[in-house]
Amino acid sequence: MRWRDDVCLAVRAALRDFVTGQCRTDLDSARVDIANEILLGFVDGGKCVRSTFMYLGWLCGAGQDDSALRASASLELFHAFALMQDDVMDESTMRRGRPAAHVLFGDWHRDGALTGASARFGESAAVLLGDLCLVWAGKMLRESGIGAEALARVWPRYDDMRVELAIGQFADLVNDAHAFPTFDEVLDVLRRKSGNYTVRRPLEIGAAMAGCSPEVVGALGDYGAAIGEAFQLRDDLLGVFGSPTLTGKSVGTDLTAQKATSVVVAAHQLADSMLRRQLSELMSTPQLSPGDAERWRALITLSGAAQWMEQLIDERLKRALDRLDSVDIPDAARYALEDMAVICTQRAA
Amino acid sequence: MRWRDDVCLAVRAALRDFVTGQCRTDLDSARVDIANEILLGFVDGGKCVRSTFMYLGWLCGAGQDDSALRASASLELFHAFALMQDDVMDESTMRRGRPAAHVLFGDWHRDGALTGASARFGESAAVLLGDLCLVWAGKMLRESGIGAEALARVWPRYDDMRVELAIGQFADLVNDAHAFPTFDEVLDVLRRKSGNYTVRRPLEIGAAMAGCSPEVVGALGDYGAAIGEAFQLRDDLLGVFGSPTLTGKSVGTDLTAQKATSVVVAAHQLADSMLRRQLSELMSTPQLSPGDAERWRALITLSGAAQWMEQLIDERLKRALDRLDSVDIPDAARYALEDMAVICTQRAA
Repeated sequence: MRWRDDVCLAVRAALRDFVTGQCRTDLDSARVDIANEILLGFVDGGKCVRSTFMYLGWLCGAGQDDSALRASASLELFHAFALMQDDVMDESTMRRGRPAAHVLFGDWHRDGALTGASARFGESAAVLLGDLCLVWAGKMLRESGIGAEALARVWPRYDDMRVELAIGQFADLVNDAHAFPTFDEVLDVLRRKSGNYTVRRPLEIGAAMAGCSPEVVGALGDYGAAIGEAFQLRDDLLGVFGSPTLTGKSVGTDLTAQKATSVVVAAHQLADSMLRRQLSELMSTPQLSPGDAERWRALITLSGAAQWMEQLIDERLKRALDRLDSVDIPDAARYALEDMAVICTQRAA
Repeated sequence: MRWRDDVCLAVRAALRDFVTGQCRTDLDSARVDIANEILLGFVDGGKCVRSTFMYLGWLCGAGQDDSALRASASLELFHAFALMQDDVMDESTMRRGRPAAHVLFGDWHRDGALTGASARFGESAAVLLGDLCLVWAGKMLRESGIGAEALARVWPRYDDMRVELAIGQFADLVNDAHAFPTFDEVLDVLRRKSGNYTVRRPLEIGAAMAGCSPEVVGALGDYGAAIGEAFQLRDDLLGVFGSPTLTGKSVGTDLTAQKATSVVVAAHQLADSMLRRQLSELMSTPQLSPGDAERWRALITLSGAAQWMEQLIDERLKRALDRLDSVDIPDAARYALEDMAVICTQRAA
């Protein structure tokens, strides 16, 4: 879609400007030359989902605007913070088709034959670069050129989004630590950690920045909640059934990490007692072989979980589009939001 | 000192208000009940150095004010972020006389007999609670009651401070990974990571918030740079020679972690070749016994490093007080800054 490519290109250009103008200068004195490269890799590799939604929120109440675009682009730096630290906590080694930040930092340490444990250095450096991205994101938003009054409408929602994400990640950690959560518990974490912050909050923030009415912000929030959940359910499905080329992550990472994602928990709940015993066994096998992961995938299909989740996704897509129909927004924004609803929820081609 | 106790009590009260009103509500839904306790422990355990300096900066240009006090108190939440994540990266187990946050989270995980590695859970949880503190700190500042114009003067400096701290921590990681930094390299990191953010930036931020002239902000910055460095040099001395009751950290942690602190590097530079060989040996011994640490302390004393550092501290104290004399600020603020200069640099009683 032409419009989407245009927004994404503009977002990346704004990010590159900020990163080369601000972040690189900051990073230079830390003598970790690879940090800048890792950051640029992140900036160029993303799909700009969050920034696009924030900008579409803006377009629901105002016209095309470079400041609003820069403000929206800042969400990608915030996202970089979340991904870098998540990958450390989940011990994920791949991200966006490249090694994860902590892996790259660890390699840099190893290649330089520095003192201490390389993996540990990599994790600390990735957490720190994440912290910096969190701070830079706020700075980029503040310096975007958006006026003080509009920004004053943004900050409370921005704070809420940041807290909500970290709390969601916290809850996710705890879910991982409890033997087996219910599907509703998983859905709750997924909503707070990923769904809200991928679609709903960016849209609301953009709309509030543009001064949209509470009715419009409310409708966008409902649309965003539904699409965000569907997006995350799709992401979990891809995490089990998707190809690495598509997801940019290692194949079946979610399974080999024995993470209780929505798919895994859904399969468990839908399975009969015999199937459930087999699933539980895989969940607690100390070291899963690729063959185990393959068998797990087959059992999940057998349980009917994938099909059921497709249904949940469809319901959410329909709910979102209906809600969008109920509210008065400019046509260009409406069509773009309809596009995005489909893009975010469709089976990958 | 009566005034100092008053400020510290008021800071703690403001923090407790914010933590119980805001943070606890946020944390409740993460189902990690200990997080709130850990946070309150942090809030009550600190010496309020940074918040006191920010408030004194304010008092250089304005009168006593509850909003300014709340704004200043927010720095303690920022400090909590820095400490929690530092302790994970440095694998420090004690902080402020209690187990470090990641240790407490790890114990909670272990006591609950949860799935997965407890130490790993503890580290992830401490990083996350740190992230939350970083966000909450900004929120507390924003909602302190300080007017928009004054806040607009604060944010750029606040962003700079946050970036500077993270970059300093980055440089610290790299220094640790290089075999042996020079004293100047250590001094540079120490200035950026700790010195500036303990005294200089808080003072400048407070003064800018109050609308002080560039002359006053400049003089406070110079005072702060000198006292911050001296404070950190003292802290490094205490890390080697201080008692745990005084520092709230494990005894000799800096030595047993074989960290190239200013004291260790100074000893190395001042030592003759024979002494230096012994020091280098201790630096690279795989597992130091308490006896090794004791011997190391003795060798450092022999090198004359402790004495030399006392001299560096004295010089900085004198420079700071002279600079303070050169500028026109209210008497109450001046006397308080003179007190703080001594408190921050003196040998512990």
